[in-house]
Amino acid sequence: MQRGTNLGRLGGYNQAVVLESIRRASDGVSRVELAASTGLSPQTISNVVRRLLDGQWVREAGTVISGPGKPRTLVELVPDRLVSVGIHLDPSVLTYVIVDLRGNILERHRAPLPGAASPQETLDAMVAEVNALIAASGYQRENVVGVGIAAPGPVDVEGGRLVQPPLLTGWNEVALVEPLREALGLEVLLAKDTVAAATAEVWVGAGQTLADFVSVYVGTGVGAGLVLGGSVLAGQTGNAGELGHVLSGSVVPEVCSVCGRHDCLAVNLNFDTIVRRGREAGIDVPDVSGRPLSEHIAAATQVMAEAAHGNVAASEVARELAAHVSLAVGHIASLLDVDQVVICGPLWEVLRGFAEGTVTEHINLNFRGTLPRDVVVTSSELGGWIAAIGGACVVLEDLLAPKTSGLLLR
Amino acid sequence: MQRGTNLGRLGGYNQAVVLESIRRASDGVSRVELAASTGLSPQTISNVVRRLLDGQWVREAGTVISGPGKPRTLVELVPDRLVSVGIHLDPSVLTYVIVDLRGNILERHRAPLPGAASPQETLDAMVAEVNALIAASGYQRENVVGVGIAAPGPVDVEGGRLVQPPLLTGWNEVALVEPLREALGLEVLLAKDTVAAATAEVWVGAGQTLADFVSVYVGTGVGAGLVLGGSVLAGQTGNAGELGHVLSGSVVPEVCSVCGRHDCLAVNLNFDTIVRRGREAGIDVPDVSGRPLSEHIAAATQVMAEAAHGNVAASEVARELAAHVSLAVGHIASLLDVDQVVICGPLWEVLRGFAEGTVTEHINLNFRGTLPRDVVVTSSELGGWIAAIGGACVVLEDLLAPKTSGLLLR
Repeated sequence: MQRGTNLGRLGGYNQAVVLESIRRASDGVSRVELAASTGLSPQTISNVVRRLLDGQWVREAGTVISGPGKPRTLVELVPDRLVSVGIHLDPSVLTYVIVDLRGNILERHRAPLPGAASPQETLDAMVAEVNALIAASGYQRENVVGVGIAAPGPVDVEGGRLVQPPLLTGWNEVALVEPLREALGLEVLLAKDTVAAATAEVWVGAGQTLADFVSVYVGTGVGAGLVLGGSVLAGQTGNAGELGHVLSGSVVPEVCSVCGRHDCLAVNLNFDTIVRRGREAGIDVPDVSGRPLSEHIAAATQVMAEAAHGNVAASEVARELAAHVSLAVGHIASLLDVDQVVICGPLWEVLRGFAEGTVTEHINLNFRGTLPRDVVVTSSELGGWIAAIGGACVVLEDLLAPKTSGLLLR
Repeated sequence: MQRGTNLGRLGGYNQAVVLESIRRASDGVSRVELAASTGLSPQTISNVVRRLLDGQWVREAGTVISGPGKPRTLVELVPDRLVSVGIHLDPSVLTYVIVDLRGNILERHRAPLPGAASPQETLDAMVAEVNALIAASGYQRENVVGVGIAAPGPVDVEGGRLVQPPLLTGWNEVALVEPLREALGLEVLLAKDTVAAATAEVWVGAGQTLADFVSVYVGTGVGAGLVLGGSVLAGQTGNAGELGHVLSGSVVPEVCSVCGRHDCLAVNLNFDTIVRRGREAGIDVPDVSGRPLSEHIAAATQVMAEAAHGNVAASEVARELAAHVSLAVGHIASLLDVDQVVICGPLWEVLRGFAEGTVTEHINLNFRGTLPRDVVVTSSELGGWIAAIGGACVVLEDLLAPKTSGLLLR
């Protein structure tokens, strides 16, 4: 059904556009510059900025002289006008952050997720930790805009529930949003982890300079977030981005817990695989099967360090993993016709020193026939906190981002 | 860069929304219904409809009595207010259509693409054929909105050129748009074939009832068009939709002309493969290597007919091809989080009687872990003319479709 629009819809949209433009100008911006960048009239800019000043969203930040005439007054964001809480629920670890409107981390905390803990115990721990972080931050509760949870997909965004998260035994169909909302008295939103990571890129990472890109998460499993025109395409149910179960052409002894195959991409792109291959190659790393993820990461990092020191077998492992990453990246880049790919995730953190250049070469070689142009692959600058930051940014995005869909009559 | 909007941008958008709503109401629609469906005020609807009546885009179409009060006057589209020409350039055949605003075919023509013909000779033939079709249609040239060419990707949409079309020897870097525009004196646009096919679905096919779906083209090769909120996501350069070169897990003697592998999806989803497998299974079909596509299609159809008659080996071939199609569809559905898939294309026309149900089952079984919900697979109703219709619809879409991006200040 096609919906029209009217004058009443314009104001909110333009205010969001102006606030977003001020937010992105880290050194302040003048009203003249805002008019130029948004296309809005000086009168509209003046009115909107006055409203934002009154609401304490922005503040004046000195003047600059540019050419003859009156010096221009700069306005800048009040970055902690509101803060947002993010939680990343991972199969092995819980990560919490509080960020300001620029996505700067104000408080952070990380705790292992005990396999023995029931979902209820974990929810109780989340409530306690969020309250502790807010207290530690010194912000009043009314300045906390909400809590965003990043969790393994598929997720039921509307129902606020996990569905069937791989590796999170006992968490099928567990409701997160309603219990947390009730216990915390705050707005709570749920997003798939890869969608949250892409939202973090848009809000505080690669999105500072790119409007169209793919964010690829390489951790235990691989997933993607498509960013178009500065917005994350989350899909009809918020579960877009699955690409781990294309065939890799490489059979491993491990079985994929999601698709049940021995040759999908996800089962190859795995800490376990690095460690096993490293051990098979005679590298002295411990057997980590059944151990916490942190030990898998440590052992895999050790194998990659051997590769960096010139160990041939370890280099071969790194090379193969890079080929698998390039397969994932190449597929999504050619399917979606994007030429900028930003990779993040714990496995990529281990691999990136070795693989960044290799992946770019691989893609542009192996997908030449299907890519309209070369793909540029870079690594995310957001590190291990990306999905938690993304959870917080999902809440900010929901409240503040200008959305053309918001222009249409309901 | 974030752009604002103003009152001046509203009028054109609302008019496009109203025209689109009238276009979609095949039995006419009243002003009251238009106000309800678009959210616009009765006054706005009244003004816009008057403008559309004045411009002869719509006409009054009788009255209906619904409840007490004045009978409601219906308005309906003038479907041939403008007509559009579509050309599908395929490695073996040239297809032409003229369609009206509803996408109904008014004239059509199909001619083999002689392998020996140079691009220049083919361009000359296109000009002659378009002129002949327009003459045959009886429409004045000023009522022809333009010509849309659907061609194998990657295409250079902006430059109006093919890039490196597989199977079209001698067509690398050939310009189509400029020469045709000059020779015909008409607006000419170029689109990738799968994007055009998806646009046809939006304009006259599955888009009549679905706003979000994936259109999958299964011909010589496989490609997709993503439809979101009633618009085709063509990608940054108009080349979105490549998915033929994921690995299939099945090695064939043929080599993929695009990726050079023997085990990608595209090289498995192929008329050649059906025919070879049929012959290996002892089915009496001719060797068609090197023969025109029409003979490949005929031979493959024969193999599928044997399958329908209970031939075990032929059924096995059909079953495997269905599995390959479901791999393609499952990947794109899980990556993009859509649950409606509409399949079209010449190979699918041969397969569909056999494969439609199988594909649905396969996907919902093999992608259970990555799909948030079951996928519904249907076959396109647009048949073999879909890409040519799509070419024509790309021109209509460009001129007439309401686009929220058009609301933003330039």
